[in-house]
Amino acid sequence: MAQEVKTVAIVGCGVIGMGWAVLFMSRGLKVIISDPAPGAHESLKRYLEQARSFFEERGDFDKLSSNYEFVEDILPRLPEVDFVQENGPERVDFKRGLMEKLDANTRPGVVIASSSSGLPSSAFIQECKNEAGRILIGHPFNPPHLIPLVEVVPHPDTTSDTISSAIAFYKSLGKKPILLHQEVPGFVSNRLQAAINNEAYSLISRGIVSAKDLDLAVTQGPGLRWALTGPIATNALGGGGGPEGFAQRFERLGPAIRGWEDDILKNRFDWSEERVKTLQESVNESLAYVDWKNLVDERDLVLLQMLAAKSKTRTMGSDD
Amino acid sequence: MAQEVKTVAIVGCGVIGMGWAVLFMSRGLKVIISDPAPGAHESLKRYLEQARSFFEERGDFDKLSSNYEFVEDILPRLPEVDFVQENGPERVDFKRGLMEKLDANTRPGVVIASSSSGLPSSAFIQECKNEAGRILIGHPFNPPHLIPLVEVVPHPDTTSDTISSAIAFYKSLGKKPILLHQEVPGFVSNRLQAAINNEAYSLISRGIVSAKDLDLAVTQGPGLRWALTGPIATNALGGGGGPEGFAQRFERLGPAIRGWEDDILKNRFDWSEERVKTLQESVNESLAYVDWKNLVDERDLVLLQMLAAKSKTRTMGSDD
Repeated sequence: MAQEVKTVAIVGCGVIGMGWAVLFMSRGLKVIISDPAPGAHESLKRYLEQARSFFEERGDFDKLSSNYEFVEDILPRLPEVDFVQENGPERVDFKRGLMEKLDANTRPGVVIASSSSGLPSSAFIQECKNEAGRILIGHPFNPPHLIPLVEVVPHPDTTSDTISSAIAFYKSLGKKPILLHQEVPGFVSNRLQAAINNEAYSLISRGIVSAKDLDLAVTQGPGLRWALTGPIATNALGGGGGPEGFAQRFERLGPAIRGWEDDILKNRFDWSEERVKTLQESVNESLAYVDWKNLVDERDLVLLQMLAAKSKTRTMGSDD
Repeated sequence: MAQEVKTVAIVGCGVIGMGWAVLFMSRGLKVIISDPAPGAHESLKRYLEQARSFFEERGDFDKLSSNYEFVEDILPRLPEVDFVQENGPERVDFKRGLMEKLDANTRPGVVIASSSSGLPSSAFIQECKNEAGRILIGHPFNPPHLIPLVEVVPHPDTTSDTISSAIAFYKSLGKKPILLHQEVPGFVSNRLQAAINNEAYSLISRGIVSAKDLDLAVTQGPGLRWALTGPIATNALGGGGGPEGFAQRFERLGPAIRGWEDDILKNRFDWSEERVKTLQESVNESLAYVDWKNLVDERDLVLLQMLAAKSKTRTMGSDD
């Protein structure tokens, strides 16, 4: 890449593609978008309208949010783009065929990033005949224009130029990219979520807590800390701060924690029909009364307030 | 209990006991405190001074923060208290002896809550000869005056009056208590933390991400959502909202998630000397440059802003 990114291709425009479109356009980039689903363009128009206040924080809504072309066939337009963000269905066969075409039609050195949420790119670059080394994963979190994290996951032959270009590009948009040094299924954040979710499903399906109290156990407790300090820094603070605080807590609480881990393993949620049923019953009871539309609006509002508050700090707002 | 709580005994005044003291006094309660550690009273005085702005939001600092007695022997003072919050060392033998004395000296029906962070109370009520049914766990999160969660964990013979009195008392202080229907080691939140931490340690010790990027993978991603919507509601939103959204996501992503879980299990952090060493090395490198004092101050500041923002919403600020 090396050159400045001015035009981005968005290949596949479901929920994730639309979030990327909002992010890219709000930063003044032009996007060329394709999606074969019926009504995809209409959905995008509604999504842009809903993101009005997000655009307005960065400039003129009409000007920024109209800086796109929705095209039927993206391939003939690829020569003019400086970065590709692919958001197709998470199926190996589909992505293999698509990547071959994206690679064949894009200018040399242009980065092709896939939003794949768990499938590593080495699974779907087999048919690329041109320059597979400029392909990697750039996995965002929903909604991509609000949540800063992007997981950058190269395959073993991704070039170091591609990695540094992708990281620099995402940073230039205000994102917080992290780098995985090896491919693992589910990458980092989805694995962490799977780990916590399995124990959540286990506790609920065993009748130990309601689904509602399980959620409160996170949103009123450790979840509040995880928005600010990650698992490792939280551990270190629990031992008084610093790398030596981490070591101290590890030493002091290790035996108790290993006991809890044994009990967690013994009672793992096994996805059996019976436990799925008990879990779903508690979910039905707990979530029936939630006002979902209002919850999403309020979540996004508070999220922006949290991000603004964090960005004003020295320790939680830096770029690194 | 049934009667109003006006005076609370704080038995053990380390970090957790001091946080409870700030909470109780800031709400106008009188506390009687004991702790045999040298310098405990001096530490408390410093802690109260540091919590000055927290007190000032609720009234006059000097008046509220002086409403306590630090005593050498708490036993002769127990007849005058309406609630006991015990925060002694997490050792079965120690807690057995202490609980026997607390139970022998407290008025009938007065709730005795232990801050134990993972040890269920059935492990340490054996020597209580008076009224073991008024003993339960009331496990807070650090810092207890800021983090709303309290895990209420009865033992099999805790009376329902005790459970409802404890929940009502904590709610009256603005806390968000959850109820466990069975005792499990580590309770709910520490088990959820152990689950995510094990996978975090695994990924770092395998060299897949640095400790720093692991923390960013939470604080810039799912951690931001977990402060607002718990694992179950987050899952439901991923499927479009509602209990049916939860079911839909479970159905759609279940197979992929089970694949990730298999890989997580296969690569579990096993606490071996070698992996502990690699983990600690990455932690040393990542955390060496953090300004811990500043981080704690800024974390508490942003935490208060987050809680205030949440309390202004309809969906995330209610008492239930």
